[in-house]
Amino acid sequence: MDPLALGYIAAGLGAGIVALGAGLGIGRLAAAALEGSARQPEAAGDIRTTMIIAAALIEGVALFGLVVCILMALRAPIGA
Amino acid sequence: MDPLALGYIAAGLGAGIVALGAGLGIGRLAAAALEGSARQPEAAGDIRTTMIIAAALIEGVALFGLVVCILMALRAPIGA
Amino acid sequence: MDPLALGYIAAGLGAGIVALGAGLGIGRLAAAALEGSARQPEAAGDIRTTMIIAAALIEGVALFGLVVCILMALRAPIGA
Amino acid sequence: MDPLALGYIAAGLGAGIVALGAGLGIGRLAAAALEGSARQPEAAGDIRTTMIIAAALIEGVALFGLVVCILMALRAPIGA
Amino acid sequence: MDPLALGYIAAGLGAGIVALGAGLGIGRLAAAALEGSARQPEAAGDIRTTMIIAAALIEGVALFGLVVCILMALRAPIGA
Amino acid sequence: MDPLALGYIAAGLGAGIVALGAGLGIGRLAAAALEGSARQPEAAGDIRTTMIIAAALIEGVALFGLVVCILMALRAPIGA
Amino acid sequence: MDPLALGYIAAGLGAGIVALGAGLGIGRLAAAALEGSARQPEAAGDIRTTMIIAAALIEGVALFGLVVCILMALRAPIGA
Amino acid sequence: MDPLALGYIAAGLGAGIVALGAGLGIGRLAAAALEGSARQPEAAGDIRTTMIIAAALIEGVALFGLVVCILMALRAPIGA
Amino acid sequence: MDPLALGYIAAGLGAGIVALGAGLGIGRLAAAALEGSARQPEAAGDIRTTMIIAAALIEGVALFGLVVCILMALRAPIGA
Amino acid sequence: MDPLALGYIAAGLGAGIVALGAGLGIGRLAAAALEGSARQPEAAGDIRTTMIIAAALIEGVALFGLVVCILMALRAPIGA
Amino acid sequence: MDPLALGYIAAGLGAGIVALGAGLGIGRLAAAALEGSARQPEAAGDIRTTMIIAAALIEGVALFGLVVCILMALRAPIGA
Amino acid sequence: MDPLALGYIAAGLGAGIVALGAGLGIGRLAAAALEGSARQPEAAGDIRTTMIIAAALIEGVALFGLVVCILMALRAPIGA
Amino acid sequence: MDPLALGYIAAGLGAGIVALGAGLGIGRLAAAALEGSARQPEAAGDIRTTMIIAAALIEGVALFGLVVCILMALRAPIGA
Amino acid sequence: MDPLALGYIAAGLGAGIVALGAGLGIGRLAAAALEGSARQPEAAGDIRTTMIIAAALIEGVALFGLVVCILMALRAPIGA
Repeated sequence: MDPLALGYIAAGLGAGIVALGAGLGIGRLAAAALEGSARQPEAAGDIRTTMIIAAALIEGVALFGLVVCILMALRAPIGA
Repeated sequence: MDPLALGYIAAGLGAGIVALGAGLGIGRLAAAALEGSARQPEAAGDIRTTMIIAAALIEGVALFGLVVCILMALRAPIGA
Repeated sequence: MDPLALGYIAAGLGAGIVALGAGLGIGRLAAAALEGSARQPEAAGDIRTTMIIAAALIEGVALFGLVVCILMALRAPIGA
Repeated sequence: MDPLALGYIAAGLGAGIVALGAGLGIGRLAAAALEGSARQPEAAGDIRTTMIIAAALIEGVALFGLVVCILMALRAPIGA
Repeated sequence: MDPLALGYIAAGLGAGIVALGAGLGIGRLAAAALEGSARQPEAAGDIRTTMIIAAALIEGVALFGLVVCILMALRAPIGA
Repeated sequence: MDPLALGYIAAGLGAGIVALGAGLGIGRLAAAALEGSARQPEAAGDIRTTMIIAAALIEGVALFGLVVCILMALRAPIGA
Repeated sequence: MDPLALGYIAAGLGAGIVALGAGLGIGRLAAAALEGSARQPEAAGDIRTTMIIAAALIEGVALFGLVVCILMALRAPIGA
Repeated sequence: MDPLALGYIAAGLGAGIVALGAGLGIGRLAAAALEGSARQPEAAGDIRTTMIIAAALIEGVALFGLVVCILMALRAPIGA
Repeated sequence: MDPLALGYIAAGLGAGIVALGAGLGIGRLAAAALEGSARQPEAAGDIRTTMIIAAALIEGVALFGLVVCILMALRAPIGA
Repeated sequence: MDPLALGYIAAGLGAGIVALGAGLGIGRLAAAALEGSARQPEAAGDIRTTMIIAAALIEGVALFGLVVCILMALRAPIGA
Repeated sequence: MDPLALGYIAAGLGAGIVALGAGLGIGRLAAAALEGSARQPEAAGDIRTTMIIAAALIEGVALFGLVVCILMALRAPIGA
Repeated sequence: MDPLALGYIAAGLGAGIVALGAGLGIGRLAAAALEGSARQPEAAGDIRTTMIIAAALIEGVALFGLVVCILMALRAPIGA
Repeated sequence: MDPLALGYIAAGLGAGIVALGAGLGIGRLAAAALEGSARQPEAAGDIRTTMIIAAALIEGVALFGLVVCILMALRAPIGA
Repeated sequence: MDPLALGYIAAGLGAGIVALGAGLGIGRLAAAALEGSARQPEAAGDIRTTMIIAAALIEGVALFGLVVCILMALRAPIGA
């Protein structure tokens, strides 16, 4: 087998799992934020700020992971 | 085996898992948004805005992941 | 093995997982919308609008994923 | 191995997972609709309409996925 | 390996997963219908109608999936 | 490998998964029916009727799936 | 490999999964029946009747599945 | 490979899964029976009778499954 | 491969899964028994009796399964 | 491959799964015992006795399973 | 392959699963102990004693399992 | 096979699982933080500080894991 | 294959699963400790002591498991 | 295959699972800490101290596991 092949499949599956993690994490905290801002509409601005900070922490890890995946996909043919 | 083959399968499964992550995440936060706007109809506009911001964060990661998958599928024959 | 083979199987399984993600996600938010409109019948129109916006976000990712799958299935014999 | 073989298995398993996703999703939202119409019998008509809209969104993705599966199964021998 | 073999196994496992999805989905909504008609016996007729509509949506996808499976099983020897 | 072999294993595992789906689904709705008839003993007859209708829908899919499995098991040696 | 081998393993694993499904399903509905008859001791006879009807529906599918398994195990050597 | 080998492994894993199903099912219904007899000590005799009937239904399927497994283990060398 | 090998691994994994099933089942019902005897200390004797009856039903299946496993392990070298 | 190899791996994985089952089961019932003795400190002695009886039933199965594993590990080289 | 290899991997994975089981079990009962001693501080000593008894039962099985694993790892080269 | 190939796939899957862990962990604690700051708006600053400390602990492990993955991906061709 | 290879992979995966078990277990009991000390601040010292005792029991098993893993990793080249 | 290959993949997957364990564990206890400090703002300092102690216990195991992984990755080429 060629290392390119596993580079391809690692990039595809890795991107999928990264998106799964980001979806579950941001979905959970955003659900809490939405419930909170429905329960306390006057605190909605503060909650939205906190939500974006927390989501940014997950986005950071997820984008780092996606960059690992896309680099691996892009350099695979170069190594061939 | 040919690297094209794993490029195909990585694109297909990766797209599936990305859609799974986006579906679970957006489904969860939208459920919270709908419950919230049912409980506080007067805050529905604010909740809908927050919901779209949070869903956009997940959509961003998911579309990035889908782009990784579709590029991998498209360039595979070019490398052949 | 032939790359066509894995193109076939990736399309089939990918389509299945995409439909699983869309089903779980839309099922969850629609359940919340239905509970909400049962609890607050006078807000049913607003809730239905929000539900369709959120479901459209999931449908978008799911249809994009299905397009990836069906293209992969269709071009596989062309590459043969 | 022959690409026909994996076309067969992808169609079968894909159809199974598609039906699993549709079953879980429609089951969940219909459960919420039934609870809602039991709690508010006078809103049963409105809830049933919303339920059918939401179920149609899942049915659409599921049938699209099943079409991908059945086409893959049908054209496989043609490619042989 | 012979494509017939994978046609057999795809039909068997696919039929199993289809029945699993239909069982979980109909089981969930019927449970909600039964709880509802126990809580509001006077709305039992309306609930039963809604239950059969929702179950029919799942049955449709499940029977479509089973037809995919059985056709695949039946034509496999014909292709041999 | 012989296609008979995978016909055997598909029949066995498929029958198992079908029974798993039927068991989980009927178990869930029967549990709801039993809780309901314990909470409202005077509605027990109506609940039992609804329960049998819903269970019959699952039984139908399950028996269809089992027929797929047993036919596959029975014709396998005929094809040999 | 010999088709007998997979006939053996399909019978064993299939019997195990069938028993798992029957155990989970009957366990769930019997739990509901026991909770119900503890909450309403005067309805215990009616609940027990409903429980046995529902359990019989699961038993039917499970025994059908076990018969598939045991026949497959028994005829395997005959085909050898 | 020898069919005896898969006969062995099917018997072992099948026995394990059968015991898992019986354990989960009887554990669940016995838990409900114990909670019920703690909440209504005067109905303990009736609950215990119902518990043993339901457990016997699971035991029946489990012992049938174990008999399938042990027969498969015992005849394997005879077929060699 | 030698049938002895799979006889070994079936015995080990089967014993593990049997113990897992027994642990989960007895753990669940004993938890209910302990909660019940904490809530109703005067019924502790009756609850303990019921607990031992139910645990014995699981122990019976588990020991039967372990006997299948240990016999398979012991006769494996004899068959060699 | 050598039967010794699978004897080793069966012993290791089997011991792990046995310990997992014992850990989950004893953890669950001990949690209930601790909650019970916190809620009813005067019944702590009786609860602890019941807890040790139930834990002993799980320990019995687990130690039996571990003995199967360690014997299989020990006799493997003897059979070589 | 060499039996040493599977002895290594069995020891590693087995140790991991043993630690997983011990972690989950002790984590669960200790959580209950901590909740109990927070709710009833005057019973903290008695609860801690019961907690250590129950944890010791899990530790016993876990250490036995780890001893199986480490012995298997240590004697593997001796058998080579 | 070439060690480069497994270096690629390890980097891709490892990055995906790391992002999954970080997403689940940060998602959970941020959900609690958002619920808390919605319930006690005057403590929002203190809660946000604690949230960032806890999230930083997870980020630290996740970034360490991603560095392991990316280094492995980068040095793989160097070793070729 | 070389036994060193499986020694490597066993050490890596084993260390991962050990850390997973320790993380889940300590996370669960520490969550209970933190909830308890928030509900009863005056018992915080006693709760923290109990928490550290329980965590030490998990740490003991986890470190033992990690030592098994690291020894296996370190001696692997020595055995080569 | 080369032992280097499995050393690579073990390091990558192991690092991923370690981060998953640490993320789940710290996420859970930090969620409890945040809920607690939202419910009792005056105990926030004490809760934060306890949270950091508990998180450090998980961090210790996780970093130990990551060190196992990174050493394995680093020495692999040295052994080649």
